[in-house]
Amino acid sequence: MQNVVELRSDTFTLPTPRMLAAATATRLGDDVYGEDPTVTELESLSAKLLGKAAGCLMPSGTMANLAALLTLSPRGGKAVVGAESDIYVYEAGGASVLGGIVYEPVTAAEDGTLPLAALTAAFEVDRDDPQFALPAVLALETPHNRRGGVPLDPGYLAAAGALAHRHGAALHLDGARVFNAALALGVPAADLAAPADTVQFCLSKGLSAPIGSVLVGDEQSIATARRYRKMLGGGMRQAGLIAACGIVALTEMVDRLADDHAHARRLADGLAGVAGLRLDPEPPRTNMVFFTVDPDITGHTTETFIEAACVRGVRLAELGRGRIRAVTHSGVSADDVDRAVTALADAVAASPGTRG
Amino acid sequence: MQNVVELRSDTFTLPTPRMLAAATATRLGDDVYGEDPTVTELESLSAKLLGKAAGCLMPSGTMANLAALLTLSPRGGKAVVGAESDIYVYEAGGASVLGGIVYEPVTAAEDGTLPLAALTAAFEVDRDDPQFALPAVLALETPHNRRGGVPLDPGYLAAAGALAHRHGAALHLDGARVFNAALALGVPAADLAAPADTVQFCLSKGLSAPIGSVLVGDEQSIATARRYRKMLGGGMRQAGLIAACGIVALTEMVDRLADDHAHARRLADGLAGVAGLRLDPEPPRTNMVFFTVDPDITGHTTETFIEAACVRGVRLAELGRGRIRAVTHSGVSADDVDRAVTALADAVAASPGTRG
Amino acid sequence: MQNVVELRSDTFTLPTPRMLAAATATRLGDDVYGEDPTVTELESLSAKLLGKAAGCLMPSGTMANLAALLTLSPRGGKAVVGAESDIYVYEAGGASVLGGIVYEPVTAAEDGTLPLAALTAAFEVDRDDPQFALPAVLALETPHNRRGGVPLDPGYLAAAGALAHRHGAALHLDGARVFNAALALGVPAADLAAPADTVQFCLSKGLSAPIGSVLVGDEQSIATARRYRKMLGGGMRQAGLIAACGIVALTEMVDRLADDHAHARRLADGLAGVAGLRLDPEPPRTNMVFFTVDPDITGHTTETFIEAACVRGVRLAELGRGRIRAVTHSGVSADDVDRAVTALADAVAASPGTRG
Amino acid sequence: MQNVVELRSDTFTLPTPRMLAAATATRLGDDVYGEDPTVTELESLSAKLLGKAAGCLMPSGTMANLAALLTLSPRGGKAVVGAESDIYVYEAGGASVLGGIVYEPVTAAEDGTLPLAALTAAFEVDRDDPQFALPAVLALETPHNRRGGVPLDPGYLAAAGALAHRHGAALHLDGARVFNAALALGVPAADLAAPADTVQFCLSKGLSAPIGSVLVGDEQSIATARRYRKMLGGGMRQAGLIAACGIVALTEMVDRLADDHAHARRLADGLAGVAGLRLDPEPPRTNMVFFTVDPDITGHTTETFIEAACVRGVRLAELGRGRIRAVTHSGVSADDVDRAVTALADAVAASPGTRG
Repeated sequence: MQNVVELRSDTFTLPTPRMLAAATATRLGDDVYGEDPTVTELESLSAKLLGKAAGCLMPSGTMANLAALLTLSPRGGKAVVGAESDIYVYEAGGASVLGGIVYEPVTAAEDGTLPLAALTAAFEVDRDDPQFALPAVLALETPHNRRGGVPLDPGYLAAAGALAHRHGAALHLDGARVFNAALALGVPAADLAAPADTVQFCLSKGLSAPIGSVLVGDEQSIATARRYRKMLGGGMRQAGLIAACGIVALTEMVDRLADDHAHARRLADGLAGVAGLRLDPEPPRTNMVFFTVDPDITGHTTETFIEAACVRGVRLAELGRGRIRAVTHSGVSADDVDRAVTALADAVAASPGTRG
Repeated sequence: MQNVVELRSDTFTLPTPRMLAAATATRLGDDVYGEDPTVTELESLSAKLLGKAAGCLMPSGTMANLAALLTLSPRGGKAVVGAESDIYVYEAGGASVLGGIVYEPVTAAEDGTLPLAALTAAFEVDRDDPQFALPAVLALETPHNRRGGVPLDPGYLAAAGALAHRHGAALHLDGARVFNAALALGVPAADLAAPADTVQFCLSKGLSAPIGSVLVGDEQSIATARRYRKMLGGGMRQAGLIAACGIVALTEMVDRLADDHAHARRLADGLAGVAGLRLDPEPPRTNMVFFTVDPDITGHTTETFIEAACVRGVRLAELGRGRIRAVTHSGVSADDVDRAVTALADAVAASPGTRG
Repeated sequence: MQNVVELRSDTFTLPTPRMLAAATATRLGDDVYGEDPTVTELESLSAKLLGKAAGCLMPSGTMANLAALLTLSPRGGKAVVGAESDIYVYEAGGASVLGGIVYEPVTAAEDGTLPLAALTAAFEVDRDDPQFALPAVLALETPHNRRGGVPLDPGYLAAAGALAHRHGAALHLDGARVFNAALALGVPAADLAAPADTVQFCLSKGLSAPIGSVLVGDEQSIATARRYRKMLGGGMRQAGLIAACGIVALTEMVDRLADDHAHARRLADGLAGVAGLRLDPEPPRTNMVFFTVDPDITGHTTETFIEAACVRGVRLAELGRGRIRAVTHSGVSADDVDRAVTALADAVAASPGTRG
Repeated sequence: MQNVVELRSDTFTLPTPRMLAAATATRLGDDVYGEDPTVTELESLSAKLLGKAAGCLMPSGTMANLAALLTLSPRGGKAVVGAESDIYVYEAGGASVLGGIVYEPVTAAEDGTLPLAALTAAFEVDRDDPQFALPAVLALETPHNRRGGVPLDPGYLAAAGALAHRHGAALHLDGARVFNAALALGVPAADLAAPADTVQFCLSKGLSAPIGSVLVGDEQSIATARRYRKMLGGGMRQAGLIAACGIVALTEMVDRLADDHAHARRLADGLAGVAGLRLDPEPPRTNMVFFTVDPDITGHTTETFIEAACVRGVRLAELGRGRIRAVTHSGVSADDVDRAVTALADAVAASPGTRG
């Protein structure tokens, strides 16, 4: 029996044998007392890779983002975010619900950027007028997931960061897949992180670690974020178990993201030949392929197509209304990609609406 | 010396002599104990006028809106609001800051409505998926101030309310100037209030009372809102002083809003004849005239024009980027309107950029 | 028919004719725009009387206290408060509910003070340990209502303030009846306010204004509190109507509090002669008389005694379990006090449990 | 070189080899999608052991407690908690800071119970009076850590739960070490859990798993808690890695807690023979020994004594002012206990204040 080709997300990646070996062998301690040496090592390594002074391991990217916003915005501040950003759409509104921060969603351009003119409008408020919540933090996402996994241009990041800082606000970078962005742009991840006050990245997506994200920034910000981590319930005891996997992820799994990008392009190329599937963006920029299904040509709705793919051993997800996302990762080989293309082509051919 | 023509807002209205007389003569009690008969009378009258079971006097429209959202949304719920609504733009983000409610701003159409398709998209979330904040309340504003003081169509209100209710959410109506909307549409205010669970209106705008807004709704909602009023600090002792003015406002000042609407049209007609001023909407629908200043024709920026008007005894305000708002009210006579037109025409003629 | 003697609270005071005349005659403006001259005058006068730089009119003492705590404590800070303080018991937990502030209630001594040793324990936390919420503000209450209306010793206030400041925390004084405290102690109110960063006092209790409290402090704190006032919904339009009464309260009604204190002592002396009523504290220190009813002697429970008093035209309230509070104020004359003593003695004599 | 005897906490326990083997071998999935079979197995097993319908794995006990309070109390509700409970003292005030819940701390008796009379006083508020925050949840802790690790009597738990339920409130049990309590009382853990709506217990304390706590309760409560877990950032991807250790903890490590209790008694017996150390409670009830150091006899302050112990290879912690806590666990053998007794006796003998 052949395995399923899991394309719903790179969060489905399984830990590598070397991660599990490291988890078993590493020295552990109670990290709530700051005494787990493996966690400390991961945090230092993470900070160094991103060019920051300090890091803090979190159980999830959601908590890393939330702790960053709580750190960078006081009660009553405004977080300017992308209207389609994961931080606004998929994190249950935590900064407002738990932290008294007001979201101001700004619509992203096709290239994933929040246009500087729109940011200027968001930041230029009369700070003496008590009617207005005062912008305290700008959150950007790279690659921008719901804009097709597109990496933000480094020049844009610098300009947006400067704009925020000019208005006394901070820049947080949701770099859940920042190493994919760095790879796509051919720059070190630290270059992307440079304009930001805090950056979070996930160990558990393309890097294939089982659990965890790291928030990096300056000493003071990370100390404050660590306080919030405790309050939120993210302080974990022998967290070295997770951190050991994370160290392997950072030392052994970053370079191989190039395979995922190549596979995404291979998948896109294959799907481009299937009538009724429309890719956007084209070509894919990182490890994500987004496409829509033309019901007139394929006889499929988005839902029936996903179901037909599933029956044929390919798992896809709808992301945004009517858009399908396929994500490549360490669990997807070139061969899996080819099988997926064949299966999806077959799903179109065998569609309920196709007449013989 | 002639008085200034105050067009910045109808919040500048002064209490009438009959209001002051009523405030002086009315029976008072401690309303925190529920023993001020004048407050009780005002609350009953308000509820009756809006066709609701109960009412609660608030020190401001901001508190009335905030108490309504707190009442209608639990912690973590989403409030779907207009992106240009007063509740989102001008109330310091209170529902998020103080109440753990997530705003989802939706862009209004030219007619002030939040398009039903956009509302459907906002309300159709997978309620089993913990990633999403769950929509709990829809807030609409009529007339929609920053859309030009346009009243929402009653059919739209009913449809939007039904949509919210179908999704298990409530409808709050920010009817700060609901009597202006009712007048413009030629329907009773209660008809506009009918689809809503709670409605707030201001005694202190066109109705000319010095202080106060009333939130109306069913008994249970108003009882809960009353709890929040206490917590927020809106419980006032001998509030009958304010309520007495409010009763006069509701009994004597509603019909005369027709004068304000006529004056707004008179002002618009006058300004339409001044080259370089562009009215939008045209004609005005309620008591607000919005216009922009063409810098090429007038030689004025928005700021210099407002300053030039001020020098000539006419007070205007910028509302939204580059838009000027002029609001008519009980303190502005037909004669004042004519003087304002003359002054604004003169301001254009004498602009710094005009060459002789 | 004789009037009821209203002893439940000094919040039942009615505005004086001169207040109403002032409200009618004063110049008004839109205070949300900062343009109401009467409000500005009241705020200046208040600040001056309390020896502070700035003041801000609030619709209630609850809002004044809440805005002060929000101003003085960041999200996640701790407010050390009296376990029997009005701010903790009677204000719906607003600082926690709305502001993300943690209350740490400390039990007051008989003299109304929160013992310095207990405060030291509350403030001495390891600030580097993220397990602990960090104390940000100490709130004291003078006179301490539920401790019998006892004024806090000025030396204690200074010591407690110094203790808070040494730990990087602020002192807020809930001086709802601070002028009663100053009178009882024979010192200017400003002396009591001196150690505090912010002080609130009510215009609507013994000072007899219908509505309003004022928060005073330094310029920066009051500017921040003003922002919170707007967010909470305490920004009122022609608030001069209220402020005019408040100015009369401050200029004409402070000295006459001596009458209330004398009447409280007269009432206490009268009740001391009624078997079965036990006064505590004895003698009363300000305008409040607290006593308990001995059921064995009087045949009354607290509830039946209050009911029996009500039937005889005297209104009392239970405050704390089994304690009855009688408050003197401008609506209670010496004659009223004597009538009350007679009525209460009669209530005891005619008790349901008394056998003939 | 001999190892340090780590008595600061049972959170220092290291995973057993069988845990690590299980973590390496278990089937994993993405638990954020609900697809990790090992997590599901742990949650079912936990629920069954505690006699509840459902369970949810959390990264920490802090998050389990916080999610429970958020689930059981609406915005503005009151959580009645022990004044010395971990939930109030050591969790950064999260329920107030993040959830708008007001803590009402109640002083525990020597036996760790919050007296029923005090609970009655806390719950009996006038629910119609908006001055009061309304009690929504009672949180009890067993064993009560800062009361000496004493288990709560099952009859008390039932009575307190009934009291809460009578007042429309819920009971949450912070059973971080609930299996220690069950062992000490000789009853199944499910009996202790029975009166509670939700119960949390830690896998990472005496049970020796590296990370994680489980919250159990009815289906609806756990579904809601799961939403909050996501919002707080506790959703973890291949959480089976942790859960596998937890399953071993529950199946292999519960019975051996008896050793820890025996070791605690052995330690107490040993220390009872050292002049100047006063045990309280005596004998220890679970795996915790609490004692104070008499400075007159030993010449030590608490701090110098802890330091002297550390120098001698024994790690102790101050818990509460002047109290020292020593906790036994799987990393402490009988031999370690004997060495600790010798070392602590030596620390006293060699005290700085001891004269020869």
